[in-house]
Amino acid sequence: MENTENRREELIGYLKGLRDHICREFESIETGGSFQRETWDYNKGSGGGEMSVLRGEVFEKAAVNWSGVQGDKTPLSNEDLPFFATGVSLITHMKNPKMPTVHFNIRYIESGDQFWIGGGYDLTPMGFVFDEDTDHFHKVAKDCLDPHGEHLYPKYKQNAAEYFYIKHWQKERGVGGIFFDHVNSGDFNKDIAMWKSVGDTFTDAIMPIYKRRITESYTEEDRQTQLQLRGHYVEFNLLYDRGTKFGFESGGNPKAILCSMPPLVAW
Amino acid sequence: MENTENRREELIGYLKGLRDHICREFESIETGGSFQRETWDYNKGSGGGEMSVLRGEVFEKAAVNWSGVQGDKTPLSNEDLPFFATGVSLITHMKNPKMPTVHFNIRYIESGDQFWIGGGYDLTPMGFVFDEDTDHFHKVAKDCLDPHGEHLYPKYKQNAAEYFYIKHWQKERGVGGIFFDHVNSGDFNKDIAMWKSVGDTFTDAIMPIYKRRITESYTEEDRQTQLQLRGHYVEFNLLYDRGTKFGFESGGNPKAILCSMPPLVAW
Repeated sequence: MENTENRREELIGYLKGLRDHICREFESIETGGSFQRETWDYNKGSGGGEMSVLRGEVFEKAAVNWSGVQGDKTPLSNEDLPFFATGVSLITHMKNPKMPTVHFNIRYIESGDQFWIGGGYDLTPMGFVFDEDTDHFHKVAKDCLDPHGEHLYPKYKQNAAEYFYIKHWQKERGVGGIFFDHVNSGDFNKDIAMWKSVGDTFTDAIMPIYKRRITESYTEEDRQTQLQLRGHYVEFNLLYDRGTKFGFESGGNPKAILCSMPPLVAW
Repeated sequence: MENTENRREELIGYLKGLRDHICREFESIETGGSFQRETWDYNKGSGGGEMSVLRGEVFEKAAVNWSGVQGDKTPLSNEDLPFFATGVSLITHMKNPKMPTVHFNIRYIESGDQFWIGGGYDLTPMGFVFDEDTDHFHKVAKDCLDPHGEHLYPKYKQNAAEYFYIKHWQKERGVGGIFFDHVNSGDFNKDIAMWKSVGDTFTDAIMPIYKRRITESYTEEDRQTQLQLRGHYVEFNLLYDRGTKFGFESGGNPKAILCSMPPLVAW
């Protein structure tokens, strides 16, 4: 990575490839549809994004967003610094309440002459917690991070527990995962290797869970529980989530920011 | 109103009576249920609230909240001032998409040695705007305010247009209404007379509209439009509404704060 321009291009290439890989993996277990892609322009600066949304029978809604934008004023910062941000962000809302919602995001951000990475994945059961699934998810996360430093998994797991906390309900959003932000150790190639590990292992973390639960039966009552728990997810995203705030504050496309919202919610 | 204690009691009595009146009016056109009342205690100070929720056939969900709480630290204020707040707040979510959502609130607040009133009502059609309904709603609001000063209706109407604005969609939430906050003219009896007029005329503003639309037919597509527009309502309440923020920041009961959420929403 010789210079900023090259680095951006290389990371964007990786992110788009990862997005394609994840979409293909999801489509491999979907029986009722495929991802539809829509592009958008970033009106408050340059760049834009690509929204991929699947509304199917297994994935009631899955939204996988890639974006790459730059502008004059870093969102959520008090200073007027130019910024560049690129990342992939995804959320699933499954039809079957036994299949958990999963959230994944990795991002690379430049602000002024600073740059850093962030990301993670976390799991939110919708009324049914299977220890076997939780254990698998966390094991993949740990195995992915350990080669990059054994202190990382406990730290990032703790970050997730703190970040994905729904204050007004005094509960964690789900069964956790990993979360990191503002990472720049000084050895950026090393940081990016960790970041890519998180990206590369995401489907290993979630797909075995989906394949295991896809045939489970459920009742109308289970479905109601799921729709209500989705409400807590909406509350978290709109009240607390920094990614959502970053999106709105940067003047991002509201359709892209909100395409993570559940297809159907009950309160 | 000789002193603070008497004033609080008098206003609480008015608010609870108004709440009962509104519930009775709503129940008079409901065919599938009645209001269920639940009380809660304010854990971060003293007082509490009474939540009245109707889940029926005409009112898919109507929530009428009375609350009266006091504590050590005024929410949304930078200073550590004791506060007292009492008010009635309500939202309806109708089954028939031709029947608009309505929101009403009046509140009385003390903070340190200051006190003021706020309130208003506003109308949000869910896909069908009937000029006749909008005109009636605004006419009742104007007729209610004019006796208290002809400058009030234009000002409060403008307040509502500015306040109930969904920034990220660059649109007003509905067809407007009236909104006022931090009102204390120095003649509190006069202010309270205006405030009570707003309370007293609310059912005149909405009930004729509901009675006119209750028998209108609608399609499954109309219903889908309604469920999606309810999503914008949720976004407004969680992203922008000061009442919601005030509630959460004061450590209010999340169930009471969120009981205004629509029963079913699609994104």
